[in-house]
Amino acid sequence: MNQKVHTEPVRFTSDDYAARMVRVVEDAAEVGLNGVLATPGPDLVWLTGYQPTAITERLTMLVLAPDEHPTLLVPALERSDAEAAEGSSSVTVVDWADGTDPYEAARHLLPPDGRFGVSDSAWALHLLGLQTTLPDTRYRALSASLPMMRAVKDSNELGRLAMAGAAADATYGEIVKLRFAGRRETEVAADLARLLREFGHEQVDFTIVGSGPNGANPHHEAGDRVIEQGDAVVLDFGGLMYGYGSDTSRTVYVGEPSAEVRAVHEVVRLAQQAAFEAVRPGIACQEIDRAARAVITEAGYGEAFIHRTGHGIGVTTHEPPYMVEGEEQTLRPGMCFSIEPGIYLAGRFGVRIEDIVTVTDTTGERFNNTDHALRTVE
Amino acid sequence: MNQKVHTEPVRFTSDDYAARMVRVVEDAAEVGLNGVLATPGPDLVWLTGYQPTAITERLTMLVLAPDEHPTLLVPALERSDAEAAEGSSSVTVVDWADGTDPYEAARHLLPPDGRFGVSDSAWALHLLGLQTTLPDTRYRALSASLPMMRAVKDSNELGRLAMAGAAADATYGEIVKLRFAGRRETEVAADLARLLREFGHEQVDFTIVGSGPNGANPHHEAGDRVIEQGDAVVLDFGGLMYGYGSDTSRTVYVGEPSAEVRAVHEVVRLAQQAAFEAVRPGIACQEIDRAARAVITEAGYGEAFIHRTGHGIGVTTHEPPYMVEGEEQTLRPGMCFSIEPGIYLAGRFGVRIEDIVTVTDTTGERFNNTDHALRTVE
Repeated sequence: MNQKVHTEPVRFTSDDYAARMVRVVEDAAEVGLNGVLATPGPDLVWLTGYQPTAITERLTMLVLAPDEHPTLLVPALERSDAEAAEGSSSVTVVDWADGTDPYEAARHLLPPDGRFGVSDSAWALHLLGLQTTLPDTRYRALSASLPMMRAVKDSNELGRLAMAGAAADATYGEIVKLRFAGRRETEVAADLARLLREFGHEQVDFTIVGSGPNGANPHHEAGDRVIEQGDAVVLDFGGLMYGYGSDTSRTVYVGEPSAEVRAVHEVVRLAQQAAFEAVRPGIACQEIDRAARAVITEAGYGEAFIHRTGHGIGVTTHEPPYMVEGEEQTLRPGMCFSIEPGIYLAGRFGVRIEDIVTVTDTTGERFNNTDHALRTVE
Repeated sequence: MNQKVHTEPVRFTSDDYAARMVRVVEDAAEVGLNGVLATPGPDLVWLTGYQPTAITERLTMLVLAPDEHPTLLVPALERSDAEAAEGSSSVTVVDWADGTDPYEAARHLLPPDGRFGVSDSAWALHLLGLQTTLPDTRYRALSASLPMMRAVKDSNELGRLAMAGAAADATYGEIVKLRFAGRRETEVAADLARLLREFGHEQVDFTIVGSGPNGANPHHEAGDRVIEQGDAVVLDFGGLMYGYGSDTSRTVYVGEPSAEVRAVHEVVRLAQQAAFEAVRPGIACQEIDRAARAVITEAGYGEAFIHRTGHGIGVTTHEPPYMVEGEEQTLRPGMCFSIEPGIYLAGRFGVRIEDIVTVTDTTGERFNNTDHALRTVE
């Protein structure tokens, strides 16, 4: 079997990264920030292509500010790695040596009373170092100050997300052919991970297999429980392919499902469809949540839908925008996120159906396209 | 070949975790803190045994404060995972639901003008959330306020570190039997990862293979370069075994080393030995760095030793205490850290020798015990 379901994407160029940096600086200025501080993780990799070997206590930080050339502050011994990144040709690399104070080095790059957006996952260690060294500076998390910074994807990014979705779909297509009854959840999870890699993922982030009562815990991963006849099994898996994420869930049944399981599954299917049909540019994220929740509440299962309806996806499998009550950000073409309502009946079973969806100029489009019907497995 | 070089360690009990929490609260009070806030990562796993499935934007935080029962704030949908952790029987679990404000939930757990030590790797997002909701609270990174919180290991921890060291040594013993010349660095790195796992590691953190000029970049990982006759090759590898770290480096040579390589290697060997011999309770960490640096500087290579001499190790492979100029913390029995001087000649080659060392009641003891002589490989 030829597992390849994709062709290699076009590489991001230094121009791509430079354009992202320019756009971020403009957006930052518009919301009254004097700059953006991106630390290792999704912001930095998206802005520069640079991903340090490890995220450590050593400060690495990209400084973007209006009228300033982008500057990347790095530990001296990681300088050559940083310079090798595709986006580095658009930044000035400045290093600091072990035994010196990295926040003193940062002081020379930041206005002393500046207001900055900082990567959500920047370490508290580093934020406190900056706050101490530059006591008149102020900070906001980038998810609060520029929540949509990475949310709108360009065509190259959309292509990668579509590839990752197709690979996840191919994984689902194979997993349902395998035996469930009599095997441990962890064995099925290992098959999911293997298939994701075979279909092109370079990184597997999660392979949830929640059988029977375990399916009622939406963040249960996979355990020693042996799957039995009569189990509903929530499958939720994803990772990164060419740097972009997949994340899909389907609930399967071992044997002939009871009327109750069929009914609950149908409610979740209708909720997922209702939320999908609500997708269009200009609508608030919370409306996507409300669309799914209304169906489930109407059916009497409102208390059993214990999480938000979805999250953004891009260079991570979990990012803004969030489809949650209170999120008034509006959808724009090129945004990509999950729609994943679920019903969780404690101690008994759970059902979740999840697709990644992108916003087109007029409506929504799925990157996951496997059947939503309740699938029977052996 | 039976790869097993260890027996399983005794499990940590809920009493072990409770005792750690009590000790941390006492230490915190002594340095004037009103509490300690531990977020997912090494602090939390060490204090409670709890490791969430993923570290996300959802706030999970252990609150330790004098005269208060330890409280673990978790997202509602991760509650059952949190309750399943061994240390959870000693904490009160409080949850917050999606769509509500987790910092409001935290407000009820924290004195409004408290001073707290917070995990270094806590997300800026969360620290800013706390600072905004509780504007009169003050924070310090735990590595600054309680730097030695996890530094002194108990006998169970020392046993695990010794096992991890023995597994890394066994890995080195096997890798030098394999062919280097004509293979890519990445192929040797894959062998290192495979061997670490075969010898019992559940997690591989790094497998550096720096051949020829790549060895002169101390944080080069492993690349496409084909290793050649006449290359010095820096090997630096480690990961976690039963939750505790290994980290060892040796430099090997493909063929017959030149007089210069032999000389540089000998300088590094003497520096590593000098630093090791300086280890004893009561000596400042910076003295370990100075002992290694003095040898290298004396030999005329001071400028080529471009990083600190070492770092602590425990539930991570990289933590306080740091063996670096300016670190006046003194060594105590049970502390464990790397001693890893190196010489890096840009564009040519590098040499590094690294062992994990623990402090006994009187001196130092190595957890890595493979030969320091310059080893020839094929």
